[in-house]
Amino acid sequence: MSNEAQVRADDRAHVFHSWAAQGRIDPLPIERAQGSYFWDYTGRRYLDFSSQLVNINIGHQHPRLVKAIQEQAAKLCTIQPAFANDKRGEAARMIAEVAPGPLNKVFFTNGGAEANENAIRMARLHTGRHKVLSTYRSYHGATATAITATGDPRRWPNEPVAIGVVHFWGPYPYRSPFYATTPEQETERALAHLRDTIVFEGPATVAAVLLETVVGTNGILVPPPGYLAGVRALCDEFGIVFIADEVMAGFGRCGEWFAVDHWGVVPDLITFAKGVNSGYLPLGGVVISDEIAETFRERPFPGGLTYSGHPLACASAVASMQIFKEEGIIEHARSLGEDVIGPGLAELAERHPSVGEVRGLGVFWAIELVRDSAGTPLVPFNAAGAASGPMNDVAAACKERGLWPFIHFNRVHVVPPCTTTAAEVREGLAILDGALTVADGFYAS
Amino acid sequence: MSNEAQVRADDRAHVFHSWAAQGRIDPLPIERAQGSYFWDYTGRRYLDFSSQLVNINIGHQHPRLVKAIQEQAAKLCTIQPAFANDKRGEAARMIAEVAPGPLNKVFFTNGGAEANENAIRMARLHTGRHKVLSTYRSYHGATATAITATGDPRRWPNEPVAIGVVHFWGPYPYRSPFYATTPEQETERALAHLRDTIVFEGPATVAAVLLETVVGTNGILVPPPGYLAGVRALCDEFGIVFIADEVMAGFGRCGEWFAVDHWGVVPDLITFAKGVNSGYLPLGGVVISDEIAETFRERPFPGGLTYSGHPLACASAVASMQIFKEEGIIEHARSLGEDVIGPGLAELAERHPSVGEVRGLGVFWAIELVRDSAGTPLVPFNAAGAASGPMNDVAAACKERGLWPFIHFNRVHVVPPCTTTAAEVREGLAILDGALTVADGFYAS
Repeated sequence: MSNEAQVRADDRAHVFHSWAAQGRIDPLPIERAQGSYFWDYTGRRYLDFSSQLVNINIGHQHPRLVKAIQEQAAKLCTIQPAFANDKRGEAARMIAEVAPGPLNKVFFTNGGAEANENAIRMARLHTGRHKVLSTYRSYHGATATAITATGDPRRWPNEPVAIGVVHFWGPYPYRSPFYATTPEQETERALAHLRDTIVFEGPATVAAVLLETVVGTNGILVPPPGYLAGVRALCDEFGIVFIADEVMAGFGRCGEWFAVDHWGVVPDLITFAKGVNSGYLPLGGVVISDEIAETFRERPFPGGLTYSGHPLACASAVASMQIFKEEGIIEHARSLGEDVIGPGLAELAERHPSVGEVRGLGVFWAIELVRDSAGTPLVPFNAAGAASGPMNDVAAACKERGLWPFIHFNRVHVVPPCTTTAAEVREGLAILDGALTVADGFYAS
Repeated sequence: MSNEAQVRADDRAHVFHSWAAQGRIDPLPIERAQGSYFWDYTGRRYLDFSSQLVNINIGHQHPRLVKAIQEQAAKLCTIQPAFANDKRGEAARMIAEVAPGPLNKVFFTNGGAEANENAIRMARLHTGRHKVLSTYRSYHGATATAITATGDPRRWPNEPVAIGVVHFWGPYPYRSPFYATTPEQETERALAHLRDTIVFEGPATVAAVLLETVVGTNGILVPPPGYLAGVRALCDEFGIVFIADEVMAGFGRCGEWFAVDHWGVVPDLITFAKGVNSGYLPLGGVVISDEIAETFRERPFPGGLTYSGHPLACASAVASMQIFKEEGIIEHARSLGEDVIGPGLAELAERHPSVGEVRGLGVFWAIELVRDSAGTPLVPFNAAGAASGPMNDVAAACKERGLWPFIHFNRVHVVPPCTTTAAEVREGLAILDGALTVADGFYAS
């Protein structure tokens, strides 16, 4: 068998894939990747406008990051979490240094789901309360509490599994759940809704409000001005822990180290994964405020994992953050958003009637596709099979032209690596331009 | 600051540790590790009788495994789970090849907790039932469902968090919950207890029986003859999924690829982590029977994670399994247990009255320490602070003499890497001999 045939055969016979009906998928074998591109075994090149699962913030196979992993592998791959280790401590210090306010300690996990599980654990024990409020239109991971906190349909087939989560509605100016007509009104009404939910759930029962700072897979929903500050104020008023889930939004994705920096808001806990080391090794964690850390000074923290603070994973985070600093990657991501992606998508929106809205910041953007002037989504919420046909056609048009898109429901997310060049972004936008013509074909003018 | 001082300073200021009151720990900085040993910054060497958290089965810094990680890092660190990848497929195929019976597909996770979360998810959806039966004296991980399935005190401060778990009692001949006087009677009564529990919980409500094949941290409880086959028969009788948690017991620890092989029993799902790649990178997973995989052929599996089938982690598993085969590590671990550790511990038990029982197989052994001829545990269940003093003294005596032990409640676990030489094991047993004299000092003859 050729290499590709062997890869396909092993995959089909032995790999059980995430989120899939195993008999209905045909996973494309990928041979290699570099920078903003990856290649299949036929030599076909794809410009990566997905950053895989919005995690390869530093781009594929960054030579300095690869070298740092190789060097640490030669030195020490792993040591258990009860010991102190140079890279574990250095990674924690560097994350604390870029985290806002008094968030100075880091609990390391293997990924984002475990980060959210542990943040919720901390909030419950810190407050002595049980309920967690999280939004519809959210994803927080697939372990029991994380999937229960999730607001999207991936939660449904898993329920009931964990207890103590209540969902509320976050702001979404383009399709306001609050019938607001301006961003300011959306903020005001979304905060009133959250306050009412807290009051009716019972403030003394609410441990945490868990929010994606910018909602990721469920729509790149950028909070309108004042919303996050208002959440912070509500949490302060009622003694509730504010957990910012920045698994997707952090580490450059929004053109900041942490997305909250864009609004100058300081949560009590920040969860991270993905961009911290671009997934070169599995790594996630929780950045913890001094006040919450103090709760666990004399009282044991009842959580842990074999690979917490994994030296090789932490070394990759240290190297990635050094590269981010030395190569100005945060600033580059910010300017890509302001100068290239934002204006580029706005221009596409003007020419393509199927584009209902463009929104985002940094390298974290969404194009919402619609089928009419009333803004009816191009495919229904949670569309599958034939119902998702128009979006499948858009995806196919991108892939045929060498662009790998990130598509969710009726949206194309434009989420390239933070290191993508302006020229590469323009190359990708030109391909999108063509694919949007396919979407326009479904538009009823 | 010296390196050690810097490591300590970073750790104390910024690292939030697993399972600890942060103000009451003083984590030892570890500088390097090789084979069966690791070193602190003062140059003090420790023989690793803990395998860290019973995960470094291949020993520290195995040169061939390090080289394989370096080579894959240069090639491709990561690609998202929806693609096919050579190392992902090869690792899955190699695991399926050594797994018993018709367990042919692998769902990869980052570690053991997620493996158990996903195995339970599969069992629930496959059966359409909700309850999971697991044992007191067990540990299954720290995410919501995994910690709820856990039977040890780490569960307590986390409850209530997930639903649908019922605990029952597993066999433990040395301290029989069933007043049995022989292993055969223990098996018979433990199976009657499990049957009664299933019948009174309602067989049509029970999705899975989840067992550590050999209970790990909670006592190296080796199932008496016939027990696992009896569990298999009960699961078949009632249409229940048998999940074997081999996160600790698998991949050489018991002198077999999978611990169930020792008894020739085939579960429906096996969860693994730790020994699959000795934790050089975070990796775990579920090995899935054809029958359960079939359930998800047309129906989507509602679980996933960004790093499922992580290429760099999978490459380390491929290399580790190749090394295991080429260097005869499974066979070596088995013979260490039969020829060196077992006889050596039996000899220590004869001379030290504080040794109540010795039990184990492969490189997976426990010495249960007692304070009198009635078998009263040397320290109480879940002892902390002053109450755990005698075991702390035993630990200190080991460490002073250059041995790093694994201690839990009133037990010293002898769990060195599978690659430890017979001479190294004897060196460690000689140190234990001295430390047991400390334990004898608490014994009331």
